[in-house]
Order: sequence, then C-alpha cells, then structure tokens
Amino acid sequence: MTDSDTEAVQLRRRRGTYATGRATQVKIIKAAVALFGESGFNASSLRDIAKRAGVTHSTLLHHFPTKAELLRAVLESRDQGDSILLADKAREGIPFLSALVTLMEHNATQRPLIELYATLSAEATAVTHPAHDYFVDRYEMVIEQNRRAFAQIKAEGLLRGGCDVERIARNTAALQDGLQIQWLLDSRVDMAACLREFLDGVLVKPLSELERCRPDDTAYITPSHQRL
Amino acid sequence: MTDSDTEAVQLRRRRGTYATGRATQVKIIKAAVALFGESGFNASSLRDIAKRAGVTHSTLLHHFPTKAELLRAVLESRDQGDSILLADKAREGIPFLSALVTLMEHNATQRPLIELYATLSAEATAVTHPAHDYFVDRYEMVIEQNRRAFAQIKAEGLLRGGCDVERIARNTAALQDGLQIQWLLDSRVDMAACLREFLDGVLVKPLSELERCRPDDTAYITPSHQRL
Repeated sequence: MTDSDTEAVQLRRRRGTYATGRATQVKIIKAAVALFGESGFNASSLRDIAKRAGVTHSTLLHHFPTKAELLRAVLESRDQGDSILLADKAREGIPFLSALVTLMEHNATQRPLIELYATLSAEATAVTHPAHDYFVDRYEMVIEQNRRAFAQIKAEGLLRGGCDVERIARNTAALQDGLQIQWLLDSRVDMAACLREFLDGVLVKPLSELERCRPDDTAYITPSHQRL
Repeated sequence: MTDSDTEAVQLRRRRGTYATGRATQVKIIKAAVALFGESGFNASSLRDIAKRAGVTHSTLLHHFPTKAELLRAVLESRDQGDSILLADKAREGIPFLSALVTLMEHNATQRPLIELYATLSAEATAVTHPAHDYFVDRYEMVIEQNRRAFAQIKAEGLLRGGCDVERIARNTAALQDGLQIQWLLDSRVDMAACLREFLDGVLVKPLSELERCRPDDTAYITPSHQRL
C-alpha cells in the first residue's frame, strides 16, 4: 500500500464518517422539530428526542451537548428552508409580496415546521427562554423586509392612499402567524388565499392584476415612472 | 343557644369556608396563568403551581385534582373577562369593530393572560392536548362573531368593494393573535393602532369616521337605509 493509497482510504473514511454524522444530525433535528412543535421546547427532553430519532442518548449528546444547542440547530435549519424559497422568488416590491403568498402555499405542506415555529415563538416571548433573542431579531428582520417592500410599492404609487407602511409591514407578519395557528387547528383554512385578501386590501389593484404586469410593462407605473 | 342561632353560625361558617376556598382557587388560577403562560402547559407541574400560589400541593389537589381541570378553570376565567368587555361595548356591525379595538387596548394591560393565550393556543394545535377542542371551538366562535359583524357592515354598504366576508373574518382573528406575539416580544408595538389600520383597509371610510356617526345619524347610511 502506497502513501497515497493510505491517504485516499483515510479521506474516504473521513468523508464516510462526516456523511454518517451529518445523517445522524439530520435525524436528530427532525425528531426535535416534531417534539418541540408538539410539546414545546420546555416540555421536551433530550432523552425523548433521542428515542424518537432512534439514536442513543449519548450519541445525541455527542452532536448536541445541550438542549439549547439543539434548538439553535433546529432554528437554523428552518431559516435555511425559508431563505432558499425567498431568494428564489423575491425581488422587491410586488414580486416580494407574490413570494410571501408562495411561501404561505409552501408552508401548508410543512406542518411539523409550522407547529414548531408557532409553539416556539409563543414560548420564547418569556425573556428567559433560550430562543428569546432569536425571535426578537427574527421579527425585526422580517418586519424590516416587509417595510422595505411596502415603501417601494408606495413609491411606485401602488399602495392604497392612507396606508401606513410601518403598520402594514407589522400586520403582514402578524397575519401570517395568526393564520398558521388557525390552519394548524383546521387544515381546511386557505392561508395563501387569506394573505392575498389582505394584500389586495392595501394595494390600489388586486395583487393578481399587478402580478400580471411584467417589470417592463408600464400599465401600473405611476407618473414618476419608477419601475418594479 | 337556640336552633336558629346554631343555623346562623353554621351558615356564617359555610360562607366563610366558601369565601376562603374561592380566594384560594383564585390564587391558584393566577399562579397557573403565569406558569402556563411562561413555560407552557406541558412543562408546568402542579407542584410548581402550588409553590408559586403559596399553597401546599395537597391544597391544590383538593381544588383541582388534575392539571387538565386546572387548565379548564384557567380558560374559563379568561373567557369571563373577555365576555364582560365585549358585552359591555359590542352591539353589531361598526360598534362591534370598535369593541375589538377597545379589547386590544385592554389586552395591552394583561400581559400574563395574553402570554397564556399565545402559548396555549400554539401548544393546543396538537390534537392530543387537553385544550385542543377548546381552541377549535373558540376559533369557530370568534370567527363566527366577526363574520356576522362584517356581513352586517357589508349589508350597510360600509364594506369596501371586493372584500370577502369569510376571509376578513378570519384575518381579523389572525391579526389579533399575531400582533399579540409581536407585542409580547416588544411592548412598544401598538396593537390597537395596527388593528385599526387593518379595519380601515376593509371599510369604505376609516373606522374613526364611521364611529363618529351615531346610530340615528344617516350620514353613512347606504340607499337601502339600513341602520347600525
């Protein structure tokens, strides 16, 4: 066996270990999403999560030494999912609103994650909760994104007169949260249609009409000729 | 001591016991509201609640033999509070919307109850949660109240054209829930102003203008001459 053979074998072995380790982490995170969502972070134990993931308690502790670290991994995995979707669809102004509606449709296929998010965000309003700062930051970020979108829509003359950008930015985020609770209680609730109803109310024309206009189409452009 | 003396003494004693018992129950319910709200129902133990209420574990069990029974008492106490306020203010149509805004202002003075409600409603989306049916029924009732109010407002010609009564009934409830989460995370959030912003968006005139019209005032009445 040459030196380079040994290196190749070691590399394969390291890669194998990494892949196995990553697969175990994913299993644990999935089990934690389900349990945190169903019972809450406070009521879930690492032992229960290990059992649900089908790994030993010590394997779980090897990957996540504390429940707070596991929580962080869970929240990061959820954020990655959202970012991929928003990055894919969202630009600014009207297309951002369309992306929000698409995200709502997507969320209706993600019950465990939505349950997790609803339960954690309520629990985490307690300042002592390990996810408190995460949720404070997350809401600031989400509302800031909305604020920027509505400010642009207003500049384009597409916001209904008298609407307050700050408040509708907040209301959009609030509505999404509240609709998710209703949908978790009754899966017949059409979250995307309800969000669209709200957005139609703050725009000069229904979102579906504004969506049909291409970026180069000037049909909905104000006299200032600002473009989407 | 005559027979009637004995009866009077016994009655006083019974009343005393009742009053003491009721005071103890109120203390326990208050402690449960705080703990369920902070940590969630699942993570709170009857021992912790007894400790917080300053009563022994066996005193608590005497009043509430199970955690589920204590939860029921907690939810009923919250409902009574809401009903008093809505019964006092709400009539139908526009005055009902005004009462919702007043309730939002009132809620901003009720942090423990709002925390409780936010945490429990999220936890209780799990079908196995003892408050699951309560929350399913509660949302149906709340949305039905909203639906009736908006249907009347529509009949009076005060609903903006194109608004869907069913969806805005849902959205109103969803918005209240979501705003409460934001307010719990940041108490500077003006929930009542945000709710008013939303309601203004679905009405033909801002709510404050419609509120100024008295029931006998026909200034905002449609040709059908229906009255508020």
